[in-house]
Amino acid sequence: MDGFLARDLADEVRTAPGTRIYVTEEVTDATDNVLQGVAGDTTGMDRYKLIEDNRKRLIADCEASGMHRCGVSSFHQGLEYFLIKRLEIRDVRLVYAPATSIGKYGGDIDNWQWPRHTGDFGFYRAYVGADGMPADFSADNVPYQAPSYLEISRSGVQDGDFVMGVGYPGSTNRYRTVSEIENQFTWFYPEARRMREDLISIINENSAGGSAARLAYENTLASLNNYAKNYQSMEESFRNSDFLARRQGLESDLQAWIDGDPQRQRRYSQALLQLDALIESDQEARERDLVRSYMGYASLPSAAQRLYRLAIEREKPDAEREPGYQERDMSRFRQSMQALSRRYDATVDQAMLSYLLRRYAELPEQFRSPALDAFYEIGTRFDQSRVEQIIADSYGDSTLDDEETRLAWMERSRAEFDSSDDPLIQLAVASHEERMALERADKELVGQLQRWRPAYMEAVIAYNRSQGRPIYADANSSLRVTVGRVQGNQPKDGLVNLPFTSLEGIVAKDTGVDPFNAPPRQLELIAAGQHGDYAMASLDSVPVNFLSDLDITGGNSGTATMNSKAQLVGLLFDGVYESIIGDWDFDARKNRAISVDVRYMLWVMEYMDEAHNLLNEMTIVD
Amino acid sequence: MDGFLARDLADEVRTAPGTRIYVTEEVTDATDNVLQGVAGDTTGMDRYKLIEDNRKRLIADCEASGMHRCGVSSFHQGLEYFLIKRLEIRDVRLVYAPATSIGKYGGDIDNWQWPRHTGDFGFYRAYVGADGMPADFSADNVPYQAPSYLEISRSGVQDGDFVMGVGYPGSTNRYRTVSEIENQFTWFYPEARRMREDLISIINENSAGGSAARLAYENTLASLNNYAKNYQSMEESFRNSDFLARRQGLESDLQAWIDGDPQRQRRYSQALLQLDALIESDQEARERDLVRSYMGYASLPSAAQRLYRLAIEREKPDAEREPGYQERDMSRFRQSMQALSRRYDATVDQAMLSYLLRRYAELPEQFRSPALDAFYEIGTRFDQSRVEQIIADSYGDSTLDDEETRLAWMERSRAEFDSSDDPLIQLAVASHEERMALERADKELVGQLQRWRPAYMEAVIAYNRSQGRPIYADANSSLRVTVGRVQGNQPKDGLVNLPFTSLEGIVAKDTGVDPFNAPPRQLELIAAGQHGDYAMASLDSVPVNFLSDLDITGGNSGTATMNSKAQLVGLLFDGVYESIIGDWDFDARKNRAISVDVRYMLWVMEYMDEAHNLLNEMTIVD
Repeated sequence: MDGFLARDLADEVRTAPGTRIYVTEEVTDATDNVLQGVAGDTTGMDRYKLIEDNRKRLIADCEASGMHRCGVSSFHQGLEYFLIKRLEIRDVRLVYAPATSIGKYGGDIDNWQWPRHTGDFGFYRAYVGADGMPADFSADNVPYQAPSYLEISRSGVQDGDFVMGVGYPGSTNRYRTVSEIENQFTWFYPEARRMREDLISIINENSAGGSAARLAYENTLASLNNYAKNYQSMEESFRNSDFLARRQGLESDLQAWIDGDPQRQRRYSQALLQLDALIESDQEARERDLVRSYMGYASLPSAAQRLYRLAIEREKPDAEREPGYQERDMSRFRQSMQALSRRYDATVDQAMLSYLLRRYAELPEQFRSPALDAFYEIGTRFDQSRVEQIIADSYGDSTLDDEETRLAWMERSRAEFDSSDDPLIQLAVASHEERMALERADKELVGQLQRWRPAYMEAVIAYNRSQGRPIYADANSSLRVTVGRVQGNQPKDGLVNLPFTSLEGIVAKDTGVDPFNAPPRQLELIAAGQHGDYAMASLDSVPVNFLSDLDITGGNSGTATMNSKAQLVGLLFDGVYESIIGDWDFDARKNRAISVDVRYMLWVMEYMDEAHNLLNEMTIVD
Repeated sequence: MDGFLARDLADEVRTAPGTRIYVTEEVTDATDNVLQGVAGDTTGMDRYKLIEDNRKRLIADCEASGMHRCGVSSFHQGLEYFLIKRLEIRDVRLVYAPATSIGKYGGDIDNWQWPRHTGDFGFYRAYVGADGMPADFSADNVPYQAPSYLEISRSGVQDGDFVMGVGYPGSTNRYRTVSEIENQFTWFYPEARRMREDLISIINENSAGGSAARLAYENTLASLNNYAKNYQSMEESFRNSDFLARRQGLESDLQAWIDGDPQRQRRYSQALLQLDALIESDQEARERDLVRSYMGYASLPSAAQRLYRLAIEREKPDAEREPGYQERDMSRFRQSMQALSRRYDATVDQAMLSYLLRRYAELPEQFRSPALDAFYEIGTRFDQSRVEQIIADSYGDSTLDDEETRLAWMERSRAEFDSSDDPLIQLAVASHEERMALERADKELVGQLQRWRPAYMEAVIAYNRSQGRPIYADANSSLRVTVGRVQGNQPKDGLVNLPFTSLEGIVAKDTGVDPFNAPPRQLELIAAGQHGDYAMASLDSVPVNFLSDLDITGGNSGTATMNSKAQLVGLLFDGVYESIIGDWDFDARKNRAISVDVRYMLWVMEYMDEAHNLLNEMTIVD
């Protein structure tokens, strides 16, 4: 795809509905508010409800302006809570994007790989009303004036330089117990990967390559595949690292530290015991939880359940509804009911359901659902062809494959569902109470974890403090700063990753075939030695991507990489293969973040796209 | 597989019949002898015959002792010939081999890869009769006493050290013309690869995994696959290198140098013109030559042809027979007729033949064989099912699938072939004269090339001499010395190969699954930090494999890597991926040879296998 450049404001292009730019305005400690009413002996369910209600109230108050999107983030596994208030700008326009063959150079093949040569950057502009406040798209809107902005460093960084990454990464699990880590890496990832690989095969076997059906499942396949690979990488990283051994060592050191002092014993030993017991009890039903978590791939029965749940939730005042079913969630809910039409094929959906039910039928009886067993006639034996007949009949007799019908059900009452003769709605109704019972049990567990995880973290923090070691909180999608240095590493015995790649590496990788099809003009510019002001002397070329030991995790893509003066020197967009396990572990020898070098961005803007208007607009310093 | 160690001479194990150790005793310039009778205007065919006869006579004289195997090697594409006389020791015994999981650690996955951790070494012992001369296996034989042997350096080499490789590599094509290079890399390798990939599919489709049929084709599949991959690597290396551009530059420089002087024009311009014309005429029939070269995969028709040819050749005195059909070749001929039984399945063989005939039928008529067309009823149209019927009938009516029958035909006369009712022998007889005509045309071409290639090389040598650049001869399976340094390289932008790998890299690669299944005892020794006298300080470990810029090609495996004192410091067994193109090109930045480090050999012998008897026998120096 060609790139895009708006040469003036009028050329800028409206982005897809729902595109947002958020500006974090306030971060407030809300621990007391969130835990209001919670006592030591509050039950799991009550604790869950109290925290949930307190959060919802805080969010509702915060969003009262209509201009903000607010969230309550938990830190240190619930030891602290912060309310984060973000201005929600809803008129977002595309200003500039380099050609796909620059921005996605290397594509999936180079994903998580080094050496890397990807120009993964672009520019949006936020627009607000004439009053400076967020507004729907309008020709009268004006560019948002941020109270502060980043200078751009033309000189970039050198090997060994300090760098700082500021972004909004997802979540990490750096303080899970050894038992959780073992379960995740030796059971969950392999099993979930197998599930995904099976579903991929089923989709492929039930839809011809290039058919409308295959096309409908393109996103589903990509997502199944993406995480199947991710899980496999997790398993490999785990096998090739000393992560578990290190954590076992830390856990026994912590235990020894607690055991070494009666006061510490009184204070912390209960937390460790209780947390382990909760985790163990949770893992007992792991097979069931895994199968249930994939049941959603059967789109029609799943839609029926969500629609029925909506009818029930709507009987309550908005504030009391389950998250996901509140008025603030309705536009997304509607979109998902619409999207189903584009991502559905009856044959594929039924084949997946048949497979999932076979997996379900393998569960011990106490983990099965009487309603599901009754509907699909699953008992001591499993008759696949009978099950497939029931699936085919229920899909055939249901009208939920029709988009208008689904949208109409969004408005119907519980009574209308209860008296429906649509078999999938009947199944949703019949199985609803069982689902609620499981959800209540989940909430009870979560509530108990909300008690013991923070207690465990208190112990971890106290222990580390006693050793003079600082403790950082897990990532949780809020603003996060990580500091480090530009540096390569030795990913394997006998091999070294250099910290920078260069323009010439693009030419060496280029095959002319996507994803290694740099624009011909770019290859010419490189051949001509066009470096402009952007060359790095030690490289004798323009640096394209660079490595640093910034501590990143999923969601860090797009993080601003800054130098010691807080000037932009790159955009962080990926990690090396050994960083995939970063959600769980940071190993300074192995984890490396990959940033696109600011000098490459400027080079592409100046020489490839002649984006002089933007270069002039930005504050570029030496 | 476990390793093997003979703790004394009596334990040493007889190797498979045909195993030989050759000791080069004399290398004599034989240019005049080989070209005896050849004049400037000798025709291609006469030149070919004269050279062939002269070579055969020289070899026969040289082998008269009955103790030697001799060969005449061409240097500089026929500008010089050398007679090489090698003592042929035929009692060869296995002394020592480390476990397969050391000797083939990394297996096919690590083939042509760096970082590498393969312990690819072992020991044979040569035995001779009590008189010191080669003898058939006998309990009375005694170890051969070599007039000289290598000392073993315990201290090995460091980064940057001088090294020398002495071995018997196959052939290189470093002085081919641009037209030949282009044809090879842009036509032959892709087309031959496609042919191989198709044949692989046919074998797999026509034999169930694990069946006797599949087993019979294991070697064939491995060989098809090996070269298909090799060709693909050649194509990739070619695309990613500036080889062609460099050679185009050299060729036009040479032309300009010749054109720049009337005397040089008179002397050399004819050679370039004639060689180009010969190459062009050869390439006209390249499709036919490719298809014909793969026809041999149809084993039965091919065996019939070779047997008939043998009957015809045996009508001549031994010295006049075609190479491959002389008495000295008979034991190998017999073995190949026997081996067919183990490597044959009727269904697979017929399916391959059907495919090859379809490819054959696509050739323009002037490149097809009237005998083949008649037998398989191939004409303006190609009826695959009819062809398959003919194949099935001819295989069904032939008795050549029987080993005894094939061996019996080795003794029969031409007349017996001519009157045979075996359809495949009838086809061999009917098509024989056509094959001979093609062979004569080939020999005429070879003879002409034998005139013009040396003339071209004269020009190349004179030009390079005028530039003060030395020229080395192509490799030709004779003893060859290459010198260089221990050094890593930068295989890609942003990536560095370090020159040494270490014991710890074995642990990091180990999965417990073949080919990454190091013996548990080895992993324990490494974990325990057992380095003995073999550690390299800069590595803080025992070096396992090392890189050098020695100029290697296919067949260099087993080359002795020596230091500046001609002491053994390693055994060269592979190259990095970028060295695959080494048959055609040497790029000092990219090509790297991989040797197993002598310190690792000694470490494995001492700590893994406790081969103290061998360590004591060898002369190990510091």
